[in-house]
Amino acid sequence: MINGERQTKAAIRWAMVGGGKGSQIGYIHRSAAERDRYFQLVAGAFDLDAARGRAFGVELGLDPDRCYADYKAIFAAESARPDGIRAVSIATPNNTHYEISKAALEAGIHVICEKPLTFTTAEALDLQRIAEERNLLVGVTYGYSGYQMIEEAARLVADGTLGEIRLVNLQFAHGFHNEAVEDANPAIRWRVDPKFAGPSYVLGDLATHPLYLAEVICPELKIRRLMCARQSFIASRAPLEDNAVTLMEYEGGAFGTLWTSAVNAGAMHSQKVRIVGSKASIEWWDEHPNQLSLEIQGEPPRLLDRGMGYLHPETSGDDRISGGHPEGLFEAWANLYYRFALVIEALDEGAPDRVADLRYPGIEAGIEGVRWVENCVRSADQGGVWVDYS
Amino acid sequence: MINGERQTKAAIRWAMVGGGKGSQIGYIHRSAAERDRYFQLVAGAFDLDAARGRAFGVELGLDPDRCYADYKAIFAAESARPDGIRAVSIATPNNTHYEISKAALEAGIHVICEKPLTFTTAEALDLQRIAEERNLLVGVTYGYSGYQMIEEAARLVADGTLGEIRLVNLQFAHGFHNEAVEDANPAIRWRVDPKFAGPSYVLGDLATHPLYLAEVICPELKIRRLMCARQSFIASRAPLEDNAVTLMEYEGGAFGTLWTSAVNAGAMHSQKVRIVGSKASIEWWDEHPNQLSLEIQGEPPRLLDRGMGYLHPETSGDDRISGGHPEGLFEAWANLYYRFALVIEALDEGAPDRVADLRYPGIEAGIEGVRWVENCVRSADQGGVWVDYS
Amino acid sequence: MINGERQTKAAIRWAMVGGGKGSQIGYIHRSAAERDRYFQLVAGAFDLDAARGRAFGVELGLDPDRCYADYKAIFAAESARPDGIRAVSIATPNNTHYEISKAALEAGIHVICEKPLTFTTAEALDLQRIAEERNLLVGVTYGYSGYQMIEEAARLVADGTLGEIRLVNLQFAHGFHNEAVEDANPAIRWRVDPKFAGPSYVLGDLATHPLYLAEVICPELKIRRLMCARQSFIASRAPLEDNAVTLMEYEGGAFGTLWTSAVNAGAMHSQKVRIVGSKASIEWWDEHPNQLSLEIQGEPPRLLDRGMGYLHPETSGDDRISGGHPEGLFEAWANLYYRFALVIEALDEGAPDRVADLRYPGIEAGIEGVRWVENCVRSADQGGVWVDYS
Amino acid sequence: MINGERQTKAAIRWAMVGGGKGSQIGYIHRSAAERDRYFQLVAGAFDLDAARGRAFGVELGLDPDRCYADYKAIFAAESARPDGIRAVSIATPNNTHYEISKAALEAGIHVICEKPLTFTTAEALDLQRIAEERNLLVGVTYGYSGYQMIEEAARLVADGTLGEIRLVNLQFAHGFHNEAVEDANPAIRWRVDPKFAGPSYVLGDLATHPLYLAEVICPELKIRRLMCARQSFIASRAPLEDNAVTLMEYEGGAFGTLWTSAVNAGAMHSQKVRIVGSKASIEWWDEHPNQLSLEIQGEPPRLLDRGMGYLHPETSGDDRISGGHPEGLFEAWANLYYRFALVIEALDEGAPDRVADLRYPGIEAGIEGVRWVENCVRSADQGGVWVDYS
Ligand SMILES: NC(=O)c1ccc[n+]([C@@H]2O[C@H](COP(=O)([O-])OP(=O)(O)OC[C@H]3O[C@@H](n4cnc5c(N)ncnc54)[C@H](O)[C@@H]3O)[C@@H](O)[C@H]2O)c1
Ligand SMILES: NC(=O)c1ccc[n+]([C@@H]2O[C@H](COP(=O)([O-])OP(=O)(O)OC[C@H]3O[C@@H](n4cnc5c(N)ncnc54)[C@H](O)[C@@H]3O)[C@@H](O)[C@H]2O)c1
Ligand SMILES: NC(=O)c1ccc[n+]([C@@H]2O[C@H](COP(=O)([O-])OP(=O)(O)OC[C@H]3O[C@@H](n4cnc5c(N)ncnc54)[C@H](O)[C@@H]3O)[C@@H](O)[C@H]2O)c1
Ligand SMILES: NC(=O)c1ccc[n+]([C@@H]2O[C@H](COP(=O)([O-])OP(=O)(O)OC[C@H]3O[C@@H](n4cnc5c(N)ncnc54)[C@H](O)[C@@H]3O)[C@@H](O)[C@H]2O)c1
Repeated sequence: MINGERQTKAAIRWAMVGGGKGSQIGYIHRSAAERDRYFQLVAGAFDLDAARGRAFGVELGLDPDRCYADYKAIFAAESARPDGIRAVSIATPNNTHYEISKAALEAGIHVICEKPLTFTTAEALDLQRIAEERNLLVGVTYGYSGYQMIEEAARLVADGTLGEIRLVNLQFAHGFHNEAVEDANPAIRWRVDPKFAGPSYVLGDLATHPLYLAEVICPELKIRRLMCARQSFIASRAPLEDNAVTLMEYEGGAFGTLWTSAVNAGAMHSQKVRIVGSKASIEWWDEHPNQLSLEIQGEPPRLLDRGMGYLHPETSGDDRISGGHPEGLFEAWANLYYRFALVIEALDEGAPDRVADLRYPGIEAGIEGVRWVENCVRSADQGGVWVDYS
Repeated sequence: MINGERQTKAAIRWAMVGGGKGSQIGYIHRSAAERDRYFQLVAGAFDLDAARGRAFGVELGLDPDRCYADYKAIFAAESARPDGIRAVSIATPNNTHYEISKAALEAGIHVICEKPLTFTTAEALDLQRIAEERNLLVGVTYGYSGYQMIEEAARLVADGTLGEIRLVNLQFAHGFHNEAVEDANPAIRWRVDPKFAGPSYVLGDLATHPLYLAEVICPELKIRRLMCARQSFIASRAPLEDNAVTLMEYEGGAFGTLWTSAVNAGAMHSQKVRIVGSKASIEWWDEHPNQLSLEIQGEPPRLLDRGMGYLHPETSGDDRISGGHPEGLFEAWANLYYRFALVIEALDEGAPDRVADLRYPGIEAGIEGVRWVENCVRSADQGGVWVDYS
Repeated sequence: MINGERQTKAAIRWAMVGGGKGSQIGYIHRSAAERDRYFQLVAGAFDLDAARGRAFGVELGLDPDRCYADYKAIFAAESARPDGIRAVSIATPNNTHYEISKAALEAGIHVICEKPLTFTTAEALDLQRIAEERNLLVGVTYGYSGYQMIEEAARLVADGTLGEIRLVNLQFAHGFHNEAVEDANPAIRWRVDPKFAGPSYVLGDLATHPLYLAEVICPELKIRRLMCARQSFIASRAPLEDNAVTLMEYEGGAFGTLWTSAVNAGAMHSQKVRIVGSKASIEWWDEHPNQLSLEIQGEPPRLLDRGMGYLHPETSGDDRISGGHPEGLFEAWANLYYRFALVIEALDEGAPDRVADLRYPGIEAGIEGVRWVENCVRSADQGGVWVDYS
Repeated sequence: MINGERQTKAAIRWAMVGGGKGSQIGYIHRSAAERDRYFQLVAGAFDLDAARGRAFGVELGLDPDRCYADYKAIFAAESARPDGIRAVSIATPNNTHYEISKAALEAGIHVICEKPLTFTTAEALDLQRIAEERNLLVGVTYGYSGYQMIEEAARLVADGTLGEIRLVNLQFAHGFHNEAVEDANPAIRWRVDPKFAGPSYVLGDLATHPLYLAEVICPELKIRRLMCARQSFIASRAPLEDNAVTLMEYEGGAFGTLWTSAVNAGAMHSQKVRIVGSKASIEWWDEHPNQLSLEIQGEPPRLLDRGMGYLHPETSGDDRISGGHPEGLFEAWANLYYRFALVIEALDEGAPDRVADLRYPGIEAGIEGVRWVENCVRSADQGGVWVDYS
């Protein structure tokens, strides 16, 4: 158990672009990054409205001089300071991810970016190229992957408990947007506007989360072809979908389904991952993330709990408190940020091998999410036909 | 609450073909039919092995003379008796349903047949024609539809609680056949042999159950087109599938998915029906059939329980005991058999209008199941393409 | 799996006293007794109102001559007939159990009686004496004990899986009588009237059920002393309680608690049994009776399901259908009636040894329930003091 | 939703006594206190072993000069500094709470102390006296009370949704100490040693938690008398108990039960609170703290979820993220520490009225816990008799 005693050498000087006052996701970035002193917030360009962004930075205790009007200003000024930021987290609407990430990387700053990483695979590959040239991290905040029971799931697959993987059943299907709530709420409006959201709504916004979880749990599975049907039950959202189903054929014969929705009336998140192997299945639900169901054919189902001695030892490496006490999404995110800190430290010290085995959502995860959405949209826009994965 | 005091005029003289000793489904037919004296077992041709069938009939208390060697013998003899059977239940492997049902109808005997009703829609329509000419029932034992909470689900849809129906998510996915268990078990072997099972395994065997539940709950929905992907994870089962996913577009824009499997390792039945409307969703699970989840967007989810005063009054018409006491599958089947008895009585008295509003799985339900499997197979065999529903 | 093929030699000629039209518990007696032809209803004195009782018997298909005005008439007439009843089930209010049971036994008729068996232990012992003299059964319908998972629980305790038993936590606490519903409902009114109900309401009506389950599961445990606190939240029910808590010290150091209530607002039955041993615990809930939780310290909890191969083989002896399909309360009761039939047959054939090992609620269970209520009331009436169990 | 933007004027300079490296509860204190900059850790006497404590402080980033050898040193030195600590959290074994708290208060330092606050009520009252004289806080870390759904529970009781409160059912019963695990683990050993733990083990260690939750939810209930039975299933723990049951009669007629255990084999925490009113019940479980069950008699049970619009507005005041995302124990504790910061600020500014309505576990909660344990032990040691609450 780590009990917050995990060590990096020093807190990484860090900033945010976006994630301003009232934003949905800004707080969890800050809370996770600063949780155990891995990062220290020293600068920001938090808001589209520069004045509001500055006021917010001051409220957060920042030096007003390091509260910037926009991303150009922050990267220019900070990269010129000897004590400038080493890393930035980008939590702005999707359409800006590519240009802001690119600018940060070109200023030599490590990037932690929200998903979906970019609008197109080409853009994502471009970021990868720059990051590799400069030995910089591009981390993507697939926050749920920080939960310990996802690690346990991956271990159970890796050690053969499930046998050969046959089925991957994924869903992330909430009901909060069953009506045209965007009419009254700008933070939802951009999500259903292709200009800001990109080529998809729920596929990019929600589905990429369980998709990444499946990649973490079943790293061997490669999609061969997929088909996707998407719908806009609130008609004004078209061409963006508020519900979609994707079927996936993997190399080697495994089969996957993914249901994503914002109109699953009455449901909370309903993010669920079920992996079916030839001998056993596992199932995980993000609303009760400290548990993992393990169902071995011919035996009674077991409910595994975070923090317990019967888990794989690696699963407990991130525990902050003993079993039975619920950890939540903030710990999952803090686990990610911890890994990002380790990677940044390793890269800055020219020792990338040190983190070669570390499991975290880096640029490949970001690319894969964008690519998958592209393939889904390509299929859906032809009427839901099978397309070879490319 | 009925408390078993529901009245038909007299117990209907009844027989079984199939459902012999050790068969999977024979006992529940008998237990349900005789439960409250709606039917009385007076004859049978229970087994492929005539001697074993006869011995079994005697064990059940039948007159040995009315334990027949096969279906031909029973229909010939019984239709000649003044006190001959008025109805027969057919619980034999799928390949025989058409010919035995046809023979029964031609002998003027009401038919209650297992699903899938026939191999082809043409055959099912043929049975319909004969039944209509002779004013005979063809009931199909979609047993789960007898549960009271399915009635409640239908009422909640009908009264507008859910709003407009958008999504129909169905599954029936157990794990009992995750290995080639048929090698050691003849009662499973025929299920994966096209000669006995017909054009499908799990699509016909399992999927038609939740499909019918969805028809009961959302009678207005008509499939416009569908696509189906099926797999044989146990290779020797090919061409029959042990796992399949079907996507359905309904007239009017609703969308459906159905997952069916016999290789969902570690799962029991996992028959689940979730209906998502524009305002609320309902969800039902056959392993806890006395409950129905009602999730109205913006309100906390409610768990409805059989037998309670807050349900639609019609839902309680079939209760045998007060709320809190679990009823099980036997009561669900008995509810079906009660309806079959009402229909037979009405038809025999030339008063079909009396049961015009009764909800029960008749020949249309049987046809629809066969048609749906046919469409699925047609899609799957072309590689999982969309096919217009026909 | 029995599939209803379990054999007794012949259906036992059987009657009911009480359990008339609209009664709460009459139907389940009939349904269970006749389920697989172990008993055959041939006579009855169903109702306090003789005419109504007769009409009901006729409705049930009985010979009007065998529908009697009261228990005296039925025992007199039937014991005089060569084809008279061999057994009677008594489902009348509590105050009549003793006299009716006694009359039946004295007429040489086997008795199956509702709980609580009598008002006093002395009366219960009296019935025992007569029954033993005449080699007659006195069965008591602790219906829940017929569930297969209760058998599994007993086997897990017996085989040492739990280690030494330390704690017995019992509850049966519904909320249906949170208001003075008896004012409008005579079938509830007698339950809160000492004249009809006896010295207790919920202690006798509800608590004796889980108490008997604990006896079945942990047959070695003997109560050394107990204390009971009881309340009448609806004041007009006093001196009868609508809520009570009993603490029990067992010989050898185990400790028990039992909570029973009719004012547990919003709850359905909430009959739960948790047995804690030195190594593991089991927990069972009557609203989902096909499951049993097994929690071994240091291992993930397992959820056992009826009908599965991993259970003790004896557990499956009563299965009527394969695992995953819910059985309900009617099957549990039918399992009891089956045992009663076996015992009656053995006694009548002078072969009581044949059923020496059979687990069923006989006269000892009936006595024990009455004794326990007596002790509880004795404690409660002194202000909730500890009393030595006597 | 607060999103971490809640404001106090400035971070309070803060230290810890105890809670050293490897301690069970030290990390959550630090994580909660510093979560949103309400407190800033500037000093510590973390460990019984001074050197280890100092090393740990340095590891946490403290000035080595402010890592002290013991509580005397820290209070002496810090109260002499102009920038000395304003508050200290005490997370040492129970036996030291009184003397360390007293020393801190006498040095003019606000105290946040672990439970149980002291060994005796007299000591606790003594702390109260000193704190009142000096206008200092004594907060007690009943961490679970920081969960939002506990606030919702209190609101539902206060607004009359439950009607008149009748029953309070509490439990905190884990299984982790079903064997003599203390033999190998010093952090458990002191808990079962009266010298360090005080007059009880599980009563003080576990039971005071749900007891305080009940006080928060039902502030009107006052215990009139109680009785307690306690056991030492691991005999070497005697006289300290590892299992206990307490019954409570409240003024006005409500009745309570509390079960606490460390030998509930196979259970995780199983901290549950059920409050039964004349109209409805609520139930909460600390392993799934984002949910609260609301069961209104005659209506289907509802499962309320944190973060949702249908809750009382005050319930959402502490939300850090929107509904559906699980918050965990760290947020609950951070909510407490936020309140402590508000109180300290108000007291230091001579404006105690500002926090007069704030719900937080202060000295009264601490006293009440100790008093309750004292009463329980008094009852238990007389053999489990009723004792008037004093
Ligand atoms: N990882 C997750 O679980 C998760 C959850 C929610 C949102 N997101 C992602 O986070 C991103 C932000 O989403 P949100 O829900 O917080 O959006 P939001 O609309 O609530 O907040 C966006 C914030 O970015 C600021 N902003 C916008 N453009 C900016 C610019 N050019 N420069 C600086 N600041 C700018 C806005 O002022 C606002 O403060 C999106 O890409 C979204 O997909 C991820
Ligand atoms: N409605 C449901 O929920 C459900 C469940 C299980 C099976 N079924 C259906 O019931 C049917 C029977 O399945 P089962 O699992 O009981 O099969 P089974 O193999 O267990 O039993 C089949 C029985 O039919 C007898 N039989 C076979 N051919 C016969 C013939 N020509 N004449 C007379 N008897 C014959 C066999 O001897 C045997 O007793 C199948 O169509 C199956 O799809 C339905
Ligand atoms: N085992 C269980 O789970 C369970 C459940 C409910 C009731 N019970 C017990 O069953 C018994 C009956 O309860 P109920 O709820 O059905 O009561 P009820 O009031 O619903 O029905 C009682 C029936 O007995 C008839 N009756 C009354 N006195 C009679 C007499 N002297 N002779 C013949 N008939 C008479 C009444 O007319 C009525 O039909 C009680 O002892 C009760 O404790 C047991
Ligand atoms: N609020 C809760 O939920 C909760 C949970 C666990 C423990 N607790 C309470 O917290 C307290 C500590 O428990 P723990 O489980 O962390 O114990 P622990 O044994 O794990 O740790 C105790 C720590 O205190 C240090 N210490 C001991 N005596 C000291 C002294 N005189 N001066 C300075 N440091 C000293 C030890 O070195 C160690 O670091 C206990 O009172 C316990 O009841 C509360």
